[in-house]
Amino acid sequence: MQSCAKSWRVIISRSMNARAPYRSISSKGDVFKKLQRLTADVSANVRCMGTSHVLWSRKIERILPRHDDFSERHIGPGDKEKREMLNTLGLESIAQLIENTVPPSIRLGRSLKMDDPVCENEILDSLQKIASRNKMWRSYIGMGYYNCSVPPVIQRNLLENSGWVTQYTPYQPEVSQGRLESLLNYQTMVCDITGMAVANASLLDEGTAAAEAMQLCNRQNKRRIFYIDPRSSPTYKIKQYTFVHLSFFLSLYLSIHLSSSIYPSVSVCLSICLSVYWSVIHPSIYLSVCVHLFFCLSLFFYPSLSVCLSVCLFLSFSICLSVYHIISLSILLSICLSVCASDPFSLTNVSCYRDAAGKEVYRLALQTREQHIRRDKATSNICTAQALLANMAAMYALYHGPQGLRHIAERTHNATLILAEGLKRAGHKLQHENFFDTLKINCGVAGKDILEKAMLREINLRVYSDGLVRPVKKFICIAYGSCTMKLNSSSELMPITWREFANIHPFVPLDQAEGYQQLFRQLERDLCEITGYDKISFQPNSGAQGEYAGLAAIKAYLNSKGESHRTVDKHKANLAAIMITYPSTNGVFEENVSEVCELIHQNGGQVYLDGANMNAQVGLCRPGDYGSDVSHLNLHKTFCIPHGGGGPGMGPIGVKQHLAPFLPSHPVVNMQSSNAGSSLGTISAAPWGSSAILPISWAYIKMMGSKGLAHATEVAILNANYMAKRLENHYKILFRGSKGFIAHEFILDVRPFKKSANIEAVDVAKRLQDYGFHAPTMSWPVAGTLMIEPTESEDKAELDRFCDSLLAIRQEIAEIEEGRMDSRVNPLKMAPHSLACITSTTWDRPYSREYAAFPMPFVRPETKFWPTISRIDDIYGDQHLVCTCPPMDVYESPYEERASS
Amino acid sequence: MQSCAKSWRVIISRSMNARAPYRSISSKGDVFKKLQRLTADVSANVRCMGTSHVLWSRKIERILPRHDDFSERHIGPGDKEKREMLNTLGLESIAQLIENTVPPSIRLGRSLKMDDPVCENEILDSLQKIASRNKMWRSYIGMGYYNCSVPPVIQRNLLENSGWVTQYTPYQPEVSQGRLESLLNYQTMVCDITGMAVANASLLDEGTAAAEAMQLCNRQNKRRIFYIDPRSSPTYKIKQYTFVHLSFFLSLYLSIHLSSSIYPSVSVCLSICLSVYWSVIHPSIYLSVCVHLFFCLSLFFYPSLSVCLSVCLFLSFSICLSVYHIISLSILLSICLSVCASDPFSLTNVSCYRDAAGKEVYRLALQTREQHIRRDKATSNICTAQALLANMAAMYALYHGPQGLRHIAERTHNATLILAEGLKRAGHKLQHENFFDTLKINCGVAGKDILEKAMLREINLRVYSDGLVRPVKKFICIAYGSCTMKLNSSSELMPITWREFANIHPFVPLDQAEGYQQLFRQLERDLCEITGYDKISFQPNSGAQGEYAGLAAIKAYLNSKGESHRTVDKHKANLAAIMITYPSTNGVFEENVSEVCELIHQNGGQVYLDGANMNAQVGLCRPGDYGSDVSHLNLHKTFCIPHGGGGPGMGPIGVKQHLAPFLPSHPVVNMQSSNAGSSLGTISAAPWGSSAILPISWAYIKMMGSKGLAHATEVAILNANYMAKRLENHYKILFRGSKGFIAHEFILDVRPFKKSANIEAVDVAKRLQDYGFHAPTMSWPVAGTLMIEPTESEDKAELDRFCDSLLAIRQEIAEIEEGRMDSRVNPLKMAPHSLACITSTTWDRPYSREYAAFPMPFVRPETKFWPTISRIDDIYGDQHLVCTCPPMDVYESPYEERASS
Repeated sequence: MQSCAKSWRVIISRSMNARAPYRSISSKGDVFKKLQRLTADVSANVRCMGTSHVLWSRKIERILPRHDDFSERHIGPGDKEKREMLNTLGLESIAQLIENTVPPSIRLGRSLKMDDPVCENEILDSLQKIASRNKMWRSYIGMGYYNCSVPPVIQRNLLENSGWVTQYTPYQPEVSQGRLESLLNYQTMVCDITGMAVANASLLDEGTAAAEAMQLCNRQNKRRIFYIDPRSSPTYKIKQYTFVHLSFFLSLYLSIHLSSSIYPSVSVCLSICLSVYWSVIHPSIYLSVCVHLFFCLSLFFYPSLSVCLSVCLFLSFSICLSVYHIISLSILLSICLSVCASDPFSLTNVSCYRDAAGKEVYRLALQTREQHIRRDKATSNICTAQALLANMAAMYALYHGPQGLRHIAERTHNATLILAEGLKRAGHKLQHENFFDTLKINCGVAGKDILEKAMLREINLRVYSDGLVRPVKKFICIAYGSCTMKLNSSSELMPITWREFANIHPFVPLDQAEGYQQLFRQLERDLCEITGYDKISFQPNSGAQGEYAGLAAIKAYLNSKGESHRTVDKHKANLAAIMITYPSTNGVFEENVSEVCELIHQNGGQVYLDGANMNAQVGLCRPGDYGSDVSHLNLHKTFCIPHGGGGPGMGPIGVKQHLAPFLPSHPVVNMQSSNAGSSLGTISAAPWGSSAILPISWAYIKMMGSKGLAHATEVAILNANYMAKRLENHYKILFRGSKGFIAHEFILDVRPFKKSANIEAVDVAKRLQDYGFHAPTMSWPVAGTLMIEPTESEDKAELDRFCDSLLAIRQEIAEIEEGRMDSRVNPLKMAPHSLACITSTTWDRPYSREYAAFPMPFVRPETKFWPTISRIDDIYGDQHLVCTCPPMDVYESPYEERASS
Repeated sequence: MQSCAKSWRVIISRSMNARAPYRSISSKGDVFKKLQRLTADVSANVRCMGTSHVLWSRKIERILPRHDDFSERHIGPGDKEKREMLNTLGLESIAQLIENTVPPSIRLGRSLKMDDPVCENEILDSLQKIASRNKMWRSYIGMGYYNCSVPPVIQRNLLENSGWVTQYTPYQPEVSQGRLESLLNYQTMVCDITGMAVANASLLDEGTAAAEAMQLCNRQNKRRIFYIDPRSSPTYKIKQYTFVHLSFFLSLYLSIHLSSSIYPSVSVCLSICLSVYWSVIHPSIYLSVCVHLFFCLSLFFYPSLSVCLSVCLFLSFSICLSVYHIISLSILLSICLSVCASDPFSLTNVSCYRDAAGKEVYRLALQTREQHIRRDKATSNICTAQALLANMAAMYALYHGPQGLRHIAERTHNATLILAEGLKRAGHKLQHENFFDTLKINCGVAGKDILEKAMLREINLRVYSDGLVRPVKKFICIAYGSCTMKLNSSSELMPITWREFANIHPFVPLDQAEGYQQLFRQLERDLCEITGYDKISFQPNSGAQGEYAGLAAIKAYLNSKGESHRTVDKHKANLAAIMITYPSTNGVFEENVSEVCELIHQNGGQVYLDGANMNAQVGLCRPGDYGSDVSHLNLHKTFCIPHGGGGPGMGPIGVKQHLAPFLPSHPVVNMQSSNAGSSLGTISAAPWGSSAILPISWAYIKMMGSKGLAHATEVAILNANYMAKRLENHYKILFRGSKGFIAHEFILDVRPFKKSANIEAVDVAKRLQDYGFHAPTMSWPVAGTLMIEPTESEDKAELDRFCDSLLAIRQEIAEIEEGRMDSRVNPLKMAPHSLACITSTTWDRPYSREYAAFPMPFVRPETKFWPTISRIDDIYGDQHLVCTCPPMDVYESPYEERASS
């Protein structure tokens, strides 16, 4: 906004200085003549006004085009800036840049076929019409999804606040202490309620969490037999099935009928039954996993020590967005130490550390490497969690307090008791004697009558039937995350809190979700046109889950052809698939991608093209055209869904026609696209994933239109090349295309400075914070380097500030290389410089406060984004893992004591 | 949120430390028995579920009360804190405090009769039902109110962002530079477009602005004849009439018919006609005022130099909230210097100043005294402006840019041209040849037919008729503002952006605004119960406008009784009214208020009770009971409407039955309460004022309920007394009640320090910024003192921090008094200490950086709210008035130059 303010001033001041004559009223006649020429049916238009103002508005649009183009807002550089950047690159036009970057053989060569772009001030009206087709019935379907009221203070200040929503995962703790503190609150709450020693801050969904727990057990004791309670909820049973089979676990139903009647729908483990349960199956050699409902736990259940792992469900917990889940896994103290080094916790668990000033601070636990990209060593394929929702849950707990939470649980349970008694007196029979908040009823009258009456009153109930669950065989790969950050406009974000999108149960009959269906259809059509695929599945909730689903679809396809022996990616006979990132993670459009795809196909394999770099391709080339069979699309990267500080995200997959029958299905909802006989199974709990955030991508695509989308890609490539050009004489740029240009990202090699100046990538990253920048991706794909992906949304001034900062840092490194600055005490090693450090009377550094904190003219005290802590002592933290809030006395303010005394 | 986080941690840590046994499932039976005892009709309830879930929910409510009480969230101190505060005061209970504070003779002695409080998570559902009764037709009524699309980025980040919305008027520029910069952008835009030298940053509405312009002319040349163009819009004509007559101006219609056809509805002054207009009436002795539409001006009209004052209307200017107006007055350079010292600009005009470090910064212009309370010397009765809306308009201009604004104006005008041509071809006749965006049509068919067709298509058109305008006689008083700041909860704020409230034209037929009518009725009923009055008028837009309306109603009443000679407040025979602030501005409930009221009545006068201090009375005593006849209610103080950085606000008036016939009416809308024969006239452009913000007060009252409202008052009194107690041994507290207690506010006397330590109130106020606090009201009602009004929303910890800060400041003063600190260079005189100052290498003060910036343990670098500039040099600024943005070169970043070279 600030720089925008400046441009306005510059423009208006110029126009005022020039005193350009305003057009007088006398020119009106000319305007009108022009208009008359442009349209012959003016009066016809006028007559139809009112009846078809949309048509009228379209015609007006053609006669009097709007000045408003959303793509101009989304794309950073303006025309003048683009020309300057092309000059720097020695190019005539953007077309020339693209010719030199994207291989002609794969160029699309035409515009995307899409609707005309919708103006920013009309997009929400269009979407409201779609939303209004979703029916707002009351849903008592349960199965893990409950409506709940989000306190407005949380909705407005967290869910609608870009300070929480647009943030990337808090890998740079010096500038993320607030979010980390909130996640620590969340973990403390989970540990408090489960009695476990360590908890993580959310996993994707219930099924994923259960499957992660099973994998973790397997890594602990290497046993491969896993008993699953037959009464567990279908939503995570599904995932367990799929996952267990994939992982070569043997999954058996537990047939102990002693406690067979306690799980009415969502499995709520009550202690009275669990103790029986555990006593039978829990000799010392077994590890046990228990799934809890947080609210239930807060009321009845103090965890038995015999449970080793607890999957804690936060349902109805400030997350009115009914298509989301937040789940945490927590671990008993006795096994947590050995577990911690090898579990998915390392992704999303917050711990207390110490910063350079000796202060207790927060950081993601066991953050062994920037970006947590552990490649082959990874133990989990989850990069995206539900961080935003975990933060909301933490704030919900603060809002109500522990007594309030217990009160809500009591009230819920007591209301269920009353309902149960009423139902009994009315002649119905309850299937279970023990329950928390859910009743399974054998109706005293015909079930059909009840359903009809419920329908008249716009109430949804769950009807029991057997779910169809089909496993597929093992096919694991471990995926990783990357970090495209582009503008998340308010127009895109506003609809996600509309009740018509947020409060629909994902299992309502489809005729109640026609708005959603329309949204899915339109988005699918546009994404197919963008990628060249024939079909999209919106089920995967993250890029990694999308990759998993895509590979599982390939496997199902091969199996269906009787080629189940194809399981690898190297040997011709057993070749299943190749996975390509394109343009490559090195930031280059390799010329021979079509040939590679053809070679794989010739040898009976399939091509999986990683969609992480779609931002370099949209509108220019399409994976489906040059030979790929399937890709996932990180909607939370390329298509403007914000990162939420680590989720929720969406990773739908696109496939060519031959793979379409194998896309994910769902046992509860009969998805139109599903093919019960061939589907790979179900890979997330909700049929269309976290669908409440899909309006973001829908709005982005609709507002950009064909031209805007392609231009965004062009400018992303322009921005990256411009930055590389400005930096190339000072840093080595690794990898370039055949004509010397890069794609949309590039790798800056800082490895030589280790030897010349004792400076590593982390020092550069932390020093960038002093300049006001979040560090780019570190050590990926090449260890010890920095990977820079500017995207199209940054304007030239911002790119220049970033380049200038890197050039200034290069000078600082030269100071060390040339002996003018100490190699241990220098602004890079001591970075970042927190406010506490800069404002202290004590200053014993061999450089000034200004040099430390305001190294460029554009870094000013009043507008700087300050790191709140000094650099974190990683080793101390990893050795002193504290994953819950510090003890009370830390929070007892000496001041408050004094005041009350 | 932070302190809340702490409480949660403290509580949960305590409960975890105690390891209190969670209740086991076996207790379920007991719960159920209790429930059975509590309700005899459980099964009946179950049966009726669905048909009347509201009833069911009520019953559940009684059986299982919620833990959730909004008043606990609104009121700061908890039970434990309240006990501690009472201990400090040496009292047993709050009841005892109230007995010692509020005179028994005026105590209400019963609970307010109000609905049961509505839970925070249900209030928006209730309100949505009301909102849905407003019909969303398309309105082409015009008359100053147009729908317009608010860019979502502005809605979310400004209108829905408490950083802009809850702020008080930027009287402390060191912590308000952002808002001041935005207002300066706004003024620059007005000056650019009007060609004037100085503009202010908004007035209440069109009529008010026109009236202010007329007063200003009168002060300039002392002439009392004012010509008003007969074609001007009724909405401001009304106000001019009322105001002009009140001010003893003589208002004459101008009957030059040369230009009689140019103003179709809103008066749009086109230059071609105006030049004729001005040439006739503008010999050198006259001053002229012209009303413009911003958009029209941007297209056609470069201001003639013969116009001295310009009233610039920002219609359709990001303000979709159709019941608001933003208007600016701008002045020609040749007269602005003499005008500036005596005009309403001093309230809301931003200018460039210089801070102690010599930096160019922003401050309210000609801020002669804190709070701008000029008392008898005031030239205007406007305290509340439309600052929030002016900021939105400024951002709207940034969003579109000057070219974009002109494009919108062109498009609007061209579309009107097409419509005009179509209408002509369809056989209708246009009344005017020249127009901008509005057509007045003599229909070729029966008007009735057209209206019926429009109605079928849900379109509102304006039907012309003669408005009835009635003047009343002079009765001026000048009012002032004060500064209650209480919690503005998100639940209260959310509805104001709902389209059903924001996008209704204020002149739609009443059957399209049934939701609003229901809201008015409910709010009127509750406010009558709270005040003891019989009738409420929601027309006044500010406290000052409310006072004016109330006094005008009294005058109309007296006139109706044939007592028009009563115009003063001192002499028995001519006694019109007395105006009382109660409890007094000195912060005391005077004992004899009933006697005073009776005395006035006995002498034929009326009692106007200033409602500014209603926060000390709600639920405890009622003006209508102890003798007052009329009061205004600052809904933006006592009833939670946020200050918006200086408006919009609402100042409805309540009256006893005998004054009800004289309440404001409206010439366009037939208000149910109006009485055409007796009304005082019309005092603001919209019949129910800025009604789109009324849901805030409605929600506050509904959620608090009778008990909560009264308790809020009690705690406001408790908080004030607690603070006074903690400070009384260190500062002199001016004025106390007969039993030694104060009401809800108190005056801290800092005058003695001028002599003892060269320290004045302003030094204490600025030093408080270093402690993280905004200064309280200064020099009101006693010059050189500080007035502290904590309200009920601050918790004890915050009160203690504030008291501790004042005590620490007292110590700092003692250091000077005792010669240990210099009387010119000390932390008070040098306050506030900006980040630039603290982080500079140069530090030549006789005290440390920490002493300056972190004077208490709770002021920490990472959480401190930093003043962005040093103290402003008032004298320099007043002598160098610059009311538009500095020239371009200030914004040319040397960095950007370098980068592009």
